[in-house]
Formats: sequence, structure tokens, C-alpha cells
Amino acid sequence: MTKLPSHVQRARRPEHKELRLASILEAARSLALEKGVRGVTLTDIAQAAGLHKSAVLRYVETREEIYLRLTAEGWTEWASALRAALGERTDGTVDELAEALSRTVVDQPLLCDLLSHVALHLERHVSAEAVLTYKLAALAALDDMAQACARFLPALDEPAARELVSAVSLLAGALWQISHPPEALARLYAEEPRLAHAVVDLLPRLTGSARALAVGLTA
Amino acid sequence: MTKLPSHVQRARRPEHKELRLASILEAARSLALEKGVRGVTLTDIAQAAGLHKSAVLRYVETREEIYLRLTAEGWTEWASALRAALGERTDGTVDELAEALSRTVVDQPLLCDLLSHVALHLERHVSAEAVLTYKLAALAALDDMAQACARFLPALDEPAARELVSAVSLLAGALWQISHPPEALARLYAEEPRLAHAVVDLLPRLTGSARALAVGLTA
Repeated sequence: MTKLPSHVQRARRPEHKELRLASILEAARSLALEKGVRGVTLTDIAQAAGLHKSAVLRYVETREEIYLRLTAEGWTEWASALRAALGERTDGTVDELAEALSRTVVDQPLLCDLLSHVALHLERHVSAEAVLTYKLAALAALDDMAQACARFLPALDEPAARELVSAVSLLAGALWQISHPPEALARLYAEEPRLAHAVVDLLPRLTGSARALAVGLTA
Repeated sequence: MTKLPSHVQRARRPEHKELRLASILEAARSLALEKGVRGVTLTDIAQAAGLHKSAVLRYVETREEIYLRLTAEGWTEWASALRAALGERTDGTVDELAEALSRTVVDQPLLCDLLSHVALHLERHVSAEAVLTYKLAALAALDDMAQACARFLPALDEPAARELVSAVSLLAGALWQISHPPEALARLYAEEPRLAHAVVDLLPRLTGSARALAVGLTA
């Protein structure tokens, strides 16, 4: 990546700080999409952003804070994609809702990858303030989606819709990891017929579970 | 832990090797129950088993293989606890099934903790042979549970029962991590009323989702 001009590198003005932070987040996003969240270090991110590691730490607390910020962004984008997919309709079906909810999260591979890392890693290596900022953004997106789902499918009330979205987010995270195995495991899946049942096709599997949950929660 | 007698320490005979492996697994189990899977190193396990790290590596490939073996054991125990809970009945209800399925996994905190680590960590640091052994044990337990569920609740066919058990296992893993936050996050939950919705009570939450899934899958 080309280095920024030196007046930006110093980043003394607020708008330059914003620019610097954005370039750090962008580097972290590209690297995670390329090789998976697990494999990206703070040093990788600093290099890709054209900065020293110590400079990166002037803008963020830890590697985990960077990915927690990207998870919050992912939730917000998921909510807005879902709103766009459901539109203004109030006569939706369970099948349509399950399909829209699953597709809009699967469309965001970085969010899917990040969802499993949040409780296991990301929330454990940041300040209380950073966790709070993340949680409030995720909860706002969850509320927003629950409202949109309940409006689209009036048989689903808002608390039930919140349960639905929350369960779909957890399943999306877990299923994403299973459906993106490391190379050695992918080879094993391909070669070993006894593992046929262990292979997961993310979107249909998630949509099936989302549909069952939505049926159960409206019953 | 007291050291084993020296003739066992050398573990030249097959029965001594079994004993040694069992003591390594037992040490790993106790440590994980005490401080969580994430926090246990191979050095911790070796110390607790009264062995040198190099000696441990004569019995297992890696720290991750130890925990993958314990996850396989956990699946088998879950299946047998579920069979015991469902008995010979063929007139079960969705509520009873959801309760039994959720309770029998929540009763195994080590399995719940391990479930999130499998795809994210454990399967990535062992040989193909170790993954295959694990997968076959987990799939056998899943089949066993699917049969038991379909027998208990005949409206649920076996493929649907397999989907139910699989989704409940993924949710149990994800919800366990969220409901066992680190100390700093637990404090934040207690102090911050805006996070009320983020607090998860594991058994009722899992039972609710299991019930919705079971209703949807029998509909």
C-alpha cells in the first residue's frame, strides 16, 4: 500500500485522525477477507496500512478493538440490508423472512467470520468502554431488525423477532466456521464418504434453521 | 497432583499407556472446568498430570488433540444422557423434547465450552486422522440422538431431528460463551442498564430456541 502524504501521516487534525483510523480499518477488513480473521495480526494490519505498529496503537487499543469496530459496522450494514430487502411490506411470509434474514447475513462474509470471534476473543482484549460501544451498536441493529421483521410478518411479535434475529446471528457465526474448513479438512471431507453428513452448505442450512425458528416463534 | 509410581511413569505396557493417556485427559478436563478451555496450555496440562511436556507429546499430538478427544467424549455422554432422559417413550411432546435436549447439554459445561472451539481452533491443529476420529464419534452421537428424538416425538422425522440436534449443539456452544463473560464484562452487564437485553441466561434461552426449532421442524 502506498504511504499517505506526510501531513496526513502525522494526523494532528481531527479529520486526519479519522482518515488514519479509516485506513487502519480498511486494511484489517481486506486482510481478514483474504485469509480469515484468525490469521491476521496487528503487525499485518500496520504493514498493510503503511504504518508502524506503535502508530496504529495511537488510534486503536488492540487488534481486537479493530475487529470489534468492524463487527459493529457489520451489524449496522446487516440491519440496513435487511430493511432494504423487506421494504415496506406488512404481508410477508415465514419463508420470505427466513430467506431475507439468512441471505443478508451470508452476503457479508466478514461479519459471518467475526460473529464467532466476538465472545470468544474480541470482547476479552479491549477496554470496558470499547465493549460498551460495540454492544450498544449491535443491540441497536438487533432492535432495528426485530422491528423490521415484526412489521413484515405481523404474526411475529417484537420479542419473538428479537429471539429469531439473535439465534440466526449465532447460527450464522457457527455455521460459517464449519462451512469454511481449513484446506486439510476440506480434503478430508472430499475424500471420506463417511463425513458426507458433516459437510455444511451455509446458505441453505442457515435458511432452513431460520425458517424452522420463525415457524416456531409465530406458532 | 501426586506423581504416578515410576513403573507407570515409563508406561511401556499398553495398559500403562492407557492409564497415562487417561491421566492427561483428566488433567485437561479439570483445568478447563476451572479456568475455561481458552486459558489452558499444554504446559499446564503436563504439570497437572505430573509429566514433562515432551512426555505428554508421546501420547497426544497437540493440546488441541487432547481437547478434541474430550469433545468426542462429551458428545457420547450427551447422547447417552439424552437417551436416559427420553426413555422408551414414543408419546413425547415438543416441550419435553426441547427441555431434555437443552438440559442434557447444559449439564455438561465442558462440552458447551468446547463446542465453540472445535471448528475455530481444535480441528486446525491436529492431524487428518485425529479430525476423522473426532468427526466420526460426533456424527455417531448425532445419529444416535436424532434416532432417540424421532422415536420420542414421532412427528419429527430423523432428518429433521438431526437438524434439530445439530442446531441446538451450535446454539449451546455460542450461548455458553456469551453467558460466561469475562469478569470485566460481567461487571459492565451488572452496572449498565442499556445492556439488559444482552444478558443471556443459558438454559432458558437455549430451551426457547430448541422449542421453536422443534415446532418448526415438525410443522
